[in-house]
Amino acid sequence: MTYSKVKYENLKELCDLVFEKFGFSAEDSQSITDVLLLADLYGIESHGIQRLVKYYSEIKNGLINVSSDVKIVKETPVSATIDGQAGMGQLIGKKAMNLAIKKAKTSGMGMVVVRNSNHYGIAGYYAKMAEEQGLLGISMTNSPAVIVPTFGREAMLGTNPIAISMPAEPYPFLMDMATSVVTRGKIEVYNKRKEPLPLGLALNIDGEDTEDPHDILYNVPRKLGGGLLPLGGSKELTGGHKGYGFALAVEMFTAILSGGFTGDKVHLDGKGGSGTCHYFFAVDYGIFGDKKDIEESFSNYLKKLRESKKAKGAARIYTHGEKEVEAYNDKMKNGIPMNDSTLKEISDICEYFDIKFNDYIKILK
Amino acid sequence: MTYSKVKYENLKELCDLVFEKFGFSAEDSQSITDVLLLADLYGIESHGIQRLVKYYSEIKNGLINVSSDVKIVKETPVSATIDGQAGMGQLIGKKAMNLAIKKAKTSGMGMVVVRNSNHYGIAGYYAKMAEEQGLLGISMTNSPAVIVPTFGREAMLGTNPIAISMPAEPYPFLMDMATSVVTRGKIEVYNKRKEPLPLGLALNIDGEDTEDPHDILYNVPRKLGGGLLPLGGSKELTGGHKGYGFALAVEMFTAILSGGFTGDKVHLDGKGGSGTCHYFFAVDYGIFGDKKDIEESFSNYLKKLRESKKAKGAARIYTHGEKEVEAYNDKMKNGIPMNDSTLKEISDICEYFDIKFNDYIKILK
Repeated sequence: MTYSKVKYENLKELCDLVFEKFGFSAEDSQSITDVLLLADLYGIESHGIQRLVKYYSEIKNGLINVSSDVKIVKETPVSATIDGQAGMGQLIGKKAMNLAIKKAKTSGMGMVVVRNSNHYGIAGYYAKMAEEQGLLGISMTNSPAVIVPTFGREAMLGTNPIAISMPAEPYPFLMDMATSVVTRGKIEVYNKRKEPLPLGLALNIDGEDTEDPHDILYNVPRKLGGGLLPLGGSKELTGGHKGYGFALAVEMFTAILSGGFTGDKVHLDGKGGSGTCHYFFAVDYGIFGDKKDIEESFSNYLKKLRESKKAKGAARIYTHGEKEVEAYNDKMKNGIPMNDSTLKEISDICEYFDIKFNDYIKILK
Repeated sequence: MTYSKVKYENLKELCDLVFEKFGFSAEDSQSITDVLLLADLYGIESHGIQRLVKYYSEIKNGLINVSSDVKIVKETPVSATIDGQAGMGQLIGKKAMNLAIKKAKTSGMGMVVVRNSNHYGIAGYYAKMAEEQGLLGISMTNSPAVIVPTFGREAMLGTNPIAISMPAEPYPFLMDMATSVVTRGKIEVYNKRKEPLPLGLALNIDGEDTEDPHDILYNVPRKLGGGLLPLGGSKELTGGHKGYGFALAVEMFTAILSGGFTGDKVHLDGKGGSGTCHYFFAVDYGIFGDKKDIEESFSNYLKKLRESKKAKGAARIYTHGEKEVEAYNDKMKNGIPMNDSTLKEISDICEYFDIKFNDYIKILK
């Protein structure tokens, strides 16, 4: 697989246009593009523009309803329960987090749970929305079951990422991580490269360690058995039950609180919405103390971590969010790497919609 | 090391009396005993009655102030910041969680952060306090630095447990887990048994994998280097940066929000308090939907997880909190296993306080 670099601005312009062709308003299209391309800017290719065509097929299949709006089912000064009505996940996610932020600004905190949504992109986007408003932000989502519980061989929980963000200088804190050892996207990379999986990432149909990416990519969507291991691996000794606990807690915060589907019921190929559930939480930490003091002590501690002694052979210690800032700056300056097959897919969809692909996409030399 | 079983009631009576001898009121003594013995009933020996003597030495060293009361530094209808004033962690923790619960009952949620406290026992106790009131409960605490950041060789974060609990039938959900692969207590067990550590749990002074428990038990408290690995291990491939992220988030929720000490500054041997920080959160999930419906769907999902297909060779899939209920019932019926050295320590302290050990402690046959 070869990669070519394309300017962010070119991708943005094209992406906005394509979403309009999908049936979204200009404003909504820009909103979706913004979430999608932040993933590419952060180097999370799996959740970026490469999903464009996938979203279109989900719209055509009736999984995503282009014209539905969210419905607030229940609300208090600190909370809301939203029915996403099978809309586009990114639009639902932004509305939900904006509502949480508004509540945090008036009541100190705002927690919004969402049912009946769809894939919403990177969880970190929503946590970061709160961070950019000077708040602490958390977002989680469930997804179609792919993680097996400890001692199991049947995927029962989504990859269930947890994202947390809070202001700090010079790198805002931003962690955004699946509760599996690795994401399904990583398994796809091994598959494309025709490389065996390292042991400790995934299980086959019988619940045994597997090196074959096929065991995940083919068997799991067909509910034949097997799945990704939770963070910590297959054994209690290495803390597998802990990752399983975090994945389960995400199901609780998203699906159980919102009255929606747990990961084992979230589906990708059905009609009328995937039933994906999300969680959004914003906290104005000024309710605990002086905001400047809190931010300063956090920045100092993160710096101390980065500057602490390195293990033999290690060059650098990161804090969460640092790599994202560096990737963002690099890609804004030098372009976003696009793999050939994604470019081909986008070119095809442009042809279908009568968009002149070459007018928009200039490969950087 | 041999174990003898002792009745819960015997231990409770003795423990209450000993804490009174330490200088606590009868009510406070019972309160502390309750936290301590729940750990033993759950089978978490490291956080149970075996800490009795340790707490006494911390009182004598001036680390724990027997007569101080908590001070509310800042408060809103949904939050409070508490200065623990170097009191006993269990008493501070219970007051803080009770305040969070009170706020949750009137405002929907209550978040309380605490600085300047001491070791508070098992985090799960406080999460469970909320669960017993029909709420969702979360508690976290930092502790003296023992976890190394990914690619580091210097302990910079506490073991930083996260506990989450929520009502469900027949087993309430209760996860309570250090964000390291294993706790320091587990390392002590290998040391006592003179067994080498499995690789992947801890690092030596140079930041290399170690099999020697001494590297943790001797080097880390002396700040010589090395430490426990975060959940996920030493590599990014196995998700070590994820466990590091969770440990760091705990420092943020406890120390940073409360304006207290981060793990690298929390100390065990100093004067005037260890500076330990805690976090308590209670949510009345009735703000999101019908409580009965939520509880029922959660119970059903947990049951489905337990009944899902087992991996080859595995007998049983657990949900978090199930083992604790079984351990509790077993130990209430059959007694709490006490190891010889703990019994000897308690017998010594009884002699010191003129308590007739044998009047209280009857070894079960």
